[in-house]
Amino acid sequence: MKKVTVGVDIGGTNTAIGLVDIDGNVLEKNSISTPDHGDAEKYIGDLAAAINEMINKVKQINTDIDVVGIGIGAPNGNYYNGTIEQAANLSFKGIVPFVEMLKKHFPDIEAIALTNDANAAAIGEMIYGGAKGMKNFAMYTLGTGVGSGLVVNGDLVYGNDGFAGECGHTTLVPDGRYCGCGGRGHLEAYCSAPGMKRTAFELLVQYNATDSLLADKSYNELDSKMIYDAAVKGDKVALEVFEITGKYLGMGLADTVHHLSPEAVFLFGGPTAAGDLIFEPTRKSMEEHLLPVFKNKIKILPSKLDTGDAAIVGASALAWKELNG
Amino acid sequence: MKKVTVGVDIGGTNTAIGLVDIDGNVLEKNSISTPDHGDAEKYIGDLAAAINEMINKVKQINTDIDVVGIGIGAPNGNYYNGTIEQAANLSFKGIVPFVEMLKKHFPDIEAIALTNDANAAAIGEMIYGGAKGMKNFAMYTLGTGVGSGLVVNGDLVYGNDGFAGECGHTTLVPDGRYCGCGGRGHLEAYCSAPGMKRTAFELLVQYNATDSLLADKSYNELDSKMIYDAAVKGDKVALEVFEITGKYLGMGLADTVHHLSPEAVFLFGGPTAAGDLIFEPTRKSMEEHLLPVFKNKIKILPSKLDTGDAAIVGASALAWKELNG
Repeated sequence: MKKVTVGVDIGGTNTAIGLVDIDGNVLEKNSISTPDHGDAEKYIGDLAAAINEMINKVKQINTDIDVVGIGIGAPNGNYYNGTIEQAANLSFKGIVPFVEMLKKHFPDIEAIALTNDANAAAIGEMIYGGAKGMKNFAMYTLGTGVGSGLVVNGDLVYGNDGFAGECGHTTLVPDGRYCGCGGRGHLEAYCSAPGMKRTAFELLVQYNATDSLLADKSYNELDSKMIYDAAVKGDKVALEVFEITGKYLGMGLADTVHHLSPEAVFLFGGPTAAGDLIFEPTRKSMEEHLLPVFKNKIKILPSKLDTGDAAIVGASALAWKELNG
Repeated sequence: MKKVTVGVDIGGTNTAIGLVDIDGNVLEKNSISTPDHGDAEKYIGDLAAAINEMINKVKQINTDIDVVGIGIGAPNGNYYNGTIEQAANLSFKGIVPFVEMLKKHFPDIEAIALTNDANAAAIGEMIYGGAKGMKNFAMYTLGTGVGSGLVVNGDLVYGNDGFAGECGHTTLVPDGRYCGCGGRGHLEAYCSAPGMKRTAFELLVQYNATDSLLADKSYNELDSKMIYDAAVKGDKVALEVFEITGKYLGMGLADTVHHLSPEAVFLFGGPTAAGDLIFEPTRKSMEEHLLPVFKNKIKILPSKLDTGDAAIVGASALAWKELNG
């Protein structure tokens, strides 16, 4: 029997499901819309049906499949309790005992576990990706927000309440930019994709850069991909956006290093596709902000997870981690 | 047989030694001057002699004593390797294989281990102090510098290289005050005892506060105790020093919470003797800087270690931790 796990990635609009083997290969996928299922009970019933549909499809081709675990990545997912708590972008509110409810549909599956999406990505990196064999590393996921997952002594750090690893909300600039969470000066307000856009407009204003390729886009039009395209064409404002984003990200990574002294920090998500444009200023800034004892030791690496399936694969890794410790 | 451990606290001028029981009671003490022993080998020989002298003194009264471990707290102490590495304030330079060298003098003692002083304090808090039973907490030690020790899942975080937990060198203010390490804007530059003095002079300048009780002291005269005494008398500048120190410390603690979601943060060291003067603004600032999911959850507590013996007791706790896991 070939053992496989199910990865479930719950997003605000879409829930993606995949059947994943121990090497991180996605054998089959399925998805349902997240908000179209009324309350949590109905949603979880429909999710279970979609998981079974996917499993049955694979079993028609390969009867030798044994589903041993389900891992779930969800916003505000609490690993300890298996709950999703007060998730702002999901249609079900309050504290949903997600794992308990899903277990009723899969009483024979050994390991069902849930965590937030960035933690799942970190576990994915550890089980299938570039962090294989590493006992201490950090993962930052850059996108609409900035998430993080921290691994110490081979285990994900959940903290006292299950919510550890919110490095996107460390303060970089006292009384700085407003963050989506209501705080100010947070890393996420500078290093997320929208943070890069904010930096671009800040620079347009500062230089009155009417000749920049970015100067013809509205605030709502401009995105981080356009900034990348302009930077590749040599646009000075766009290039400086990457410099500044890297400067702030490196400051934040240095704070993480001073806490945890990891072997490496992995970066994941859209903005990392810019390669050296973002990695180089990030490395430079991190080194500048490190104590001598940490200098030239800590690797900053791109995630090895496939961008398209990373969320599913990360979630499935949580199930393998539960099974194998 | 009553089991006891030896705690060794290596400071730049003095090395303090104590015999400590499992409840943290110091049965006997001894000390040697740190720099007066030439190279590391001579120093360790003299240290071993002082330890034996202390043990023999106690055994004359109580023959029922069994010394089962030696714990050492030292600047730049590396737990993994048992080494002291490039310690700026010690007379022996380079990388000293301290544990290996000390073991030659005590071949029959089961557990000999070494870490830095702030890590030792955190283990002391866990074994004997207010963190008994806690699996996730942080300790900040405020003094000439700011050290920290972080505990995750019941174990001290050493990181990949043994040097984790340097939260005093997280950046609070981009391009802010110079730190003793050469960096800028670090927590230590604001929240250490000298950091408080720097804040006091910043405020004297800002208000031209000639009527402040602090205005008659030179830069080299003023210390944090004088600031405390002036604050108790209602001196406005001194009171604001505590407000500002707490504001920065709370920002730093919030960063630690966003990383590790601890149950509590313990504060240790001279400035904490000011009680609510420092704890209240620290709590207020930390809460202001926390994500909603962490608000009103994390305790900020004074260390329960006896200030005078904390370093010895913390170091001895490392030996108990080695023995009992």
